[in-house]
Amino acid sequence: SARRVETFGTTIFTEINVLAQQYHALNLGQGKPDFDTPSDIVAELVKASQAGNYNQYAPGPGTPDLRQAVAHHAARFYDLDIDPDRGVIVTAGATEGLLSCVLGLVDPGDEVIVIEPFYDSYVPNIIMAGAVPVFVPLHPPTWTFDPDELRAAFSNKTRAIILNSPHNPTGRVFTREELTLLAELCIEHDVIVISDEVYEHLTLGDASYLSIATLPGMFERTVTVSSAGKSFSATGWKIGWVYGHPDILDGVARAHQFITFAVHHPTQQAVAYALNQPDSYYRAFKEMYEDKVELLMSSLEGSGLQYSRPQGTYFIMADFSHVFDGMPFDFTRYLISEIGVACIPPESMYSKEHRHIGKNYVRFSFCKSDEALRQARIPLQKLR
Amino acid sequence: SARRVETFGTTIFTEINVLAQQYHALNLGQGKPDFDTPSDIVAELVKASQAGNYNQYAPGPGTPDLRQAVAHHAARFYDLDIDPDRGVIVTAGATEGLLSCVLGLVDPGDEVIVIEPFYDSYVPNIIMAGAVPVFVPLHPPTWTFDPDELRAAFSNKTRAIILNSPHNPTGRVFTREELTLLAELCIEHDVIVISDEVYEHLTLGDASYLSIATLPGMFERTVTVSSAGKSFSATGWKIGWVYGHPDILDGVARAHQFITFAVHHPTQQAVAYALNQPDSYYRAFKEMYEDKVELLMSSLEGSGLQYSRPQGTYFIMADFSHVFDGMPFDFTRYLISEIGVACIPPESMYSKEHRHIGKNYVRFSFCKSDEALRQARIPLQKLR
Ligand SMILES: CSCCC(=O)C(=O)O
Ligand SMILES: CSCCC(=O)C(=O)O
Repeated sequence: SARRVETFGTTIFTEINVLAQQYHALNLGQGKPDFDTPSDIVAELVKASQAGNYNQYAPGPGTPDLRQAVAHHAARFYDLDIDPDRGVIVTAGATEGLLSCVLGLVDPGDEVIVIEPFYDSYVPNIIMAGAVPVFVPLHPPTWTFDPDELRAAFSNKTRAIILNSPHNPTGRVFTREELTLLAELCIEHDVIVISDEVYEHLTLGDASYLSIATLPGMFERTVTVSSAGKSFSATGWKIGWVYGHPDILDGVARAHQFITFAVHHPTQQAVAYALNQPDSYYRAFKEMYEDKVELLMSSLEGSGLQYSRPQGTYFIMADFSHVFDGMPFDFTRYLISEIGVACIPPESMYSKEHRHIGKNYVRFSFCKSDEALRQARIPLQKLR
Repeated sequence: SARRVETFGTTIFTEINVLAQQYHALNLGQGKPDFDTPSDIVAELVKASQAGNYNQYAPGPGTPDLRQAVAHHAARFYDLDIDPDRGVIVTAGATEGLLSCVLGLVDPGDEVIVIEPFYDSYVPNIIMAGAVPVFVPLHPPTWTFDPDELRAAFSNKTRAIILNSPHNPTGRVFTREELTLLAELCIEHDVIVISDEVYEHLTLGDASYLSIATLPGMFERTVTVSSAGKSFSATGWKIGWVYGHPDILDGVARAHQFITFAVHHPTQQAVAYALNQPDSYYRAFKEMYEDKVELLMSSLEGSGLQYSRPQGTYFIMADFSHVFDGMPFDFTRYLISEIGVACIPPESMYSKEHRHIGKNYVRFSFCKSDEALRQARIPLQKLR
């Protein structure tokens, strides 16, 4: 195999899914709902599949209906003015969207800032572009970055920063103050933000969500990546998109053409329908997860794990250091095989140099049925 | 944008689709059927979408059912012994499959041999890997390569060759003799074949199709890429796959994880069903295109264009030099705007140095309704 992929392990999500299946564990690992997509949205996929004119190649940049819906959604929720023709590219999930951004905007030798812990495709994507990741850790238990560490990460080689808010796996929603500092540094150093916003509709409680493209001077230097998977409980559909200023989207579009060319045609029509859901949908969606986070927190109570309520996403990071002596992967294996509950250890979400920062934590997902969340009691005997 | 994408234009397929729409031309450009996917295959997509358990993330390498079906299909048609677990990766169409092969197997600075004219994503993919394309032209009107030119393209830097048979756009199906020479050179120089076989079920007349992985010594150095789009008239579904020896597939799998991670879940079940179609399906499919090629050839009769019956694919390359003075793109624009028929000019399927070789040709697609093919009469007045 090529040298660039030799450092890539099997994604942790696949690895844990295999283990969980082997031990028939309750799988709170991958952020994969164990319930179905809303039936009215599925009905739109069925309708488009049967309409007779959506089963052949979609336009490479996405169907006009979906690009229009993405632009409307950005106007409705963020007051952003997006050109549906030249400012939106539909991709095979946010994963392809992120790769299109990196391959379309970043040159070999450029530096790309990555906040740790990170979603596990960011660094492989940077390596695929021949670029160099520069890491800025979030510090537990509050998962905030040190402003000086952030500042020090910018250099004259910095081309982009990958931002993710609400943040997987920590559940942080970055504050206006944090994002303003980040924006100032990007403007000062002429840096692009690749903003992964797939959990945009998943803020919890009173956390207030800010999209970085809306900050002064940021629209022209931000590409925003999102997808249907999380917001519509349709992770298996793999429909994502990238939007932003046409000048910067142009590079992303050129890369996308030769990564997948186009995406699943009938599903684009269903996602266009979904994005245009009334406010009541988005409100009920958020409320559903506000209930689910309570259920998971109750189940973790008395486990000896330490955690706080996440501000967003459907993940809880929990500190196991009071009950288990070992690395997160060891704890995960123990949980899966002995307790029957699977979680995600964050080792692959850190650079080697910073891995110790997350060494006491594992991530639990609560995009699961209420019943599963109630069953997820973890009666931990002290091991140390 | 990044330097690597600055050389990438808008794909010719998008460009011609836009022009064809503008002039309401009969579109014989992109290989996009104007008829629907067989209804029993669509019904399987509908069934899977409604089953309640296929709308969340598929396993990253593909569903067990589809990987099994791909392995069965390779055994049934090519007598190949493929491991469904470690020898198959499901991708977002052949386009992502090809990129996964290139990023997973080719290092920066490596040379990759490309036969011209080529499908337009090959060279951008090679450039994305930081590798160097080395071109070997097919010579019209027979579209054969010169054995000495092929031999000369191999060097100690050659890592891979991208082969496509049946060949888009020329309609060639390479002979056992041609493939044997190619195989010998690959073995001698320790080179991998990335074999794009998306038109595998589209041989016409008595052309006999040979998959290069079946030649002695080739299985362990071949990754075969194919897809559902062409064989099941479902180009909008974007389900492809790569298969081969697990040792070589490993690099492909590692790349795929961080390109799209996984592919549209319910559609994988429909494609598994489709691949397992009885022989009668594949026979009727081939017969349908044998009729369609006749229809297109009749319509081109009397146009002054020169062409011969293709051995495979659903494309005809036609020489317009007796009726028009100009480059293929100019002729295409003329055909679209003045005659109302769109085709694909092959400029983007050649390196600059070899563009003159295809300068008299354009490509017509016959994956169109019989009615459209009958209407495609091209009454050309001599222009020169
Ligand atoms: C391929 S897993 C996608 C992201 C997610 O859901 C997770 O982090 O678990
Ligand atoms: C993205 S177009 C796919 C290939 C094809 O059908 C063509 O060459 O026209």
